[in-house]
Amino acid sequence: MQIKRPTLIIDQDKVVANVKKMLKKLENSKTSFRPHFKTHQSSDVGEWLRELGVNKITVSSVKMAEYFAKNDWDDITIAFPVNIREIDEINNLALKINLGLLVESDLVIDFLSTNLSTGVNCWIKIDVGYRRTGIPWDKHDEILELARHILNSPKLRFSGLLTHAGHSYHMPTKKEKIALHNKTINRLNKIRTYLEKQGISDIKLSTGDTPTASIVESFEGIDEIRPGNFVFYDLAQVKLGSCQDKEIACVVACPVVAKHKQRNELVIYGGKVHFSKDFLEEEDGIVYYGKMAEKTPSGWGGIIEGCYMRRISQEHGMIKVTDEIFNDIDIGDIIYVFPVTANTTVHVIDKIITKEGEKLEKLT
Amino acid sequence: MQIKRPTLIIDQDKVVANVKKMLKKLENSKTSFRPHFKTHQSSDVGEWLRELGVNKITVSSVKMAEYFAKNDWDDITIAFPVNIREIDEINNLALKINLGLLVESDLVIDFLSTNLSTGVNCWIKIDVGYRRTGIPWDKHDEILELARHILNSPKLRFSGLLTHAGHSYHMPTKKEKIALHNKTINRLNKIRTYLEKQGISDIKLSTGDTPTASIVESFEGIDEIRPGNFVFYDLAQVKLGSCQDKEIACVVACPVVAKHKQRNELVIYGGKVHFSKDFLEEEDGIVYYGKMAEKTPSGWGGIIEGCYMRRISQEHGMIKVTDEIFNDIDIGDIIYVFPVTANTTVHVIDKIITKEGEKLEKLT
Repeated sequence: MQIKRPTLIIDQDKVVANVKKMLKKLENSKTSFRPHFKTHQSSDVGEWLRELGVNKITVSSVKMAEYFAKNDWDDITIAFPVNIREIDEINNLALKINLGLLVESDLVIDFLSTNLSTGVNCWIKIDVGYRRTGIPWDKHDEILELARHILNSPKLRFSGLLTHAGHSYHMPTKKEKIALHNKTINRLNKIRTYLEKQGISDIKLSTGDTPTASIVESFEGIDEIRPGNFVFYDLAQVKLGSCQDKEIACVVACPVVAKHKQRNELVIYGGKVHFSKDFLEEEDGIVYYGKMAEKTPSGWGGIIEGCYMRRISQEHGMIKVTDEIFNDIDIGDIIYVFPVTANTTVHVIDKIITKEGEKLEKLT
Repeated sequence: MQIKRPTLIIDQDKVVANVKKMLKKLENSKTSFRPHFKTHQSSDVGEWLRELGVNKITVSSVKMAEYFAKNDWDDITIAFPVNIREIDEINNLALKINLGLLVESDLVIDFLSTNLSTGVNCWIKIDVGYRRTGIPWDKHDEILELARHILNSPKLRFSGLLTHAGHSYHMPTKKEKIALHNKTINRLNKIRTYLEKQGISDIKLSTGDTPTASIVESFEGIDEIRPGNFVFYDLAQVKLGSCQDKEIACVVACPVVAKHKQRNELVIYGGKVHFSKDFLEEEDGIVYYGKMAEKTPSGWGGIIEGCYMRRISQEHGMIKVTDEIFNDIDIGDIIYVFPVTANTTVHVIDKIITKEGEKLEKLT
């Protein structure tokens, strides 16, 4: 395998192990599994999950839904508020697959009622505290009205309440993340109870974020989970305590193009357009855009201590390394770098391969 | 023109005005113009520049050089340290066009001497203080050795000294930027004088960054400039004082998908995968990922005060707006958002069109 340009390498064994670990937690539970496919955006990686029993998925755009529908996924939720300008594409999808949509306004429900040509599943997007979008969880009457509006709309099947507790990414400790998870379940169940008292039945609850999904022991009280990132993990998840560094299933392989002894830095071909500009901060204030991974005969192991991407520009990455690594590595060598956030790295990078060198298809 | 998904719109009139302004400064000067095409990565935008007299260009990767070579550009400098793993591609390019490469090590010069099949122009990359890569400007002997090494290598034509004074992006005032520009010229000229004393002649000096190129009155002392971003400009350049907001030649057109009255926020379809995650900070500490542009009958004007993207996630943007704008805009409307950095926005976004709705080709 001759790598010439920055390339994302995926370790299938690690992916399978990460997915199996999540499936294990779901065993003997009634909670169903609808992983978010925006993390990999790859029909090939999708097949690995299908072989493990996954049969319904989440995506973040109509375009991504079209891509996976073309690749034989027939039960897809688009976890993004309906963009009414894409109604033609939504109608095409709804004719082919079991399609789930998110609504949070009367305007959109009316628009869908008038313009849909076939039935879709309809979730109300709830804001449990992340404050990105959705109806605030404590506005029970507003949620009730929307639910009734959906129930009165032909073509719209009311599925339930869906949320993304993205603020879990800001909870530093395991204890706080578990507390947040319990609060989310509690808030959603309160709404469900309220709606049931008003005569609405069959209300499903759907949540999904990797930090909590990775650490809680059980998903009791939730009907469906939609984590995405756990398939690959990344440095952000290591920092959050969702995984060990050795579990990260992807690295960016980058050619070394220059060396600077006076500051123990390697310059790599690998920058913002390959990694994105996401960064993390160490406790001592050091900012990093990636960390070097240890190469092993079968792929890679964990982080190499003291070796991290300290600066990034469009195509360049500046890697601070130890004396030992500096002396070991030459211009023209390939180094492996763990990304800060796998999701955006997957999105921006051109090429994805397995560690055996096979090209993996992805959405372009 | 029916926009369905986040789309970058380019105002050709503004692009032409921005380029003409730069060309005006170059009139009656011996400094030649080799604009950086990584900003637009578009063969169509390239043609607009060609019509204004541009005939040589800079790019940041071999892939980008291949793209523009295919689109009839025959004088291209790849302003990135040679990645020796791409030697086959470099050889293919060198056979077709007048190719410029950057070197900064004996290893790479030796490699090129051995492996090039035809002649290329060879620049020594100088670090004038940005500390990204290149030979530190004050290491005159090291630079001399490299120059001699190039001169002794068949197939390598020594072109001169090339730098990117990227630290101009961190100089807050016009005065400091001009001082930096003068320092850069001074440092490069000192090296040239030193090399000339050692019998080396015909040494060209090449610099290129938009912040200084936009504000200096003359490029005396420099043989070639390579700014890129000035073609479009962006919010980062407005903040740097390189341009006025009305001169920004691109906006991201985004559909509104939700509204939140309690916090005067619009949620748009338009996130990190369309804008990148670059941000700026106001003096009062407010962080923003974009600012709303005022729509006009012919395109757009300046920034709408008080309306900015305060948060961004993968596909969502949260736009804080004034009461007036909140009431004016409905779900399903398109708003225009100025990006923080045009270069990365161009890179990540799928689709680029003119304000008349014509699709513009770009490198994929």
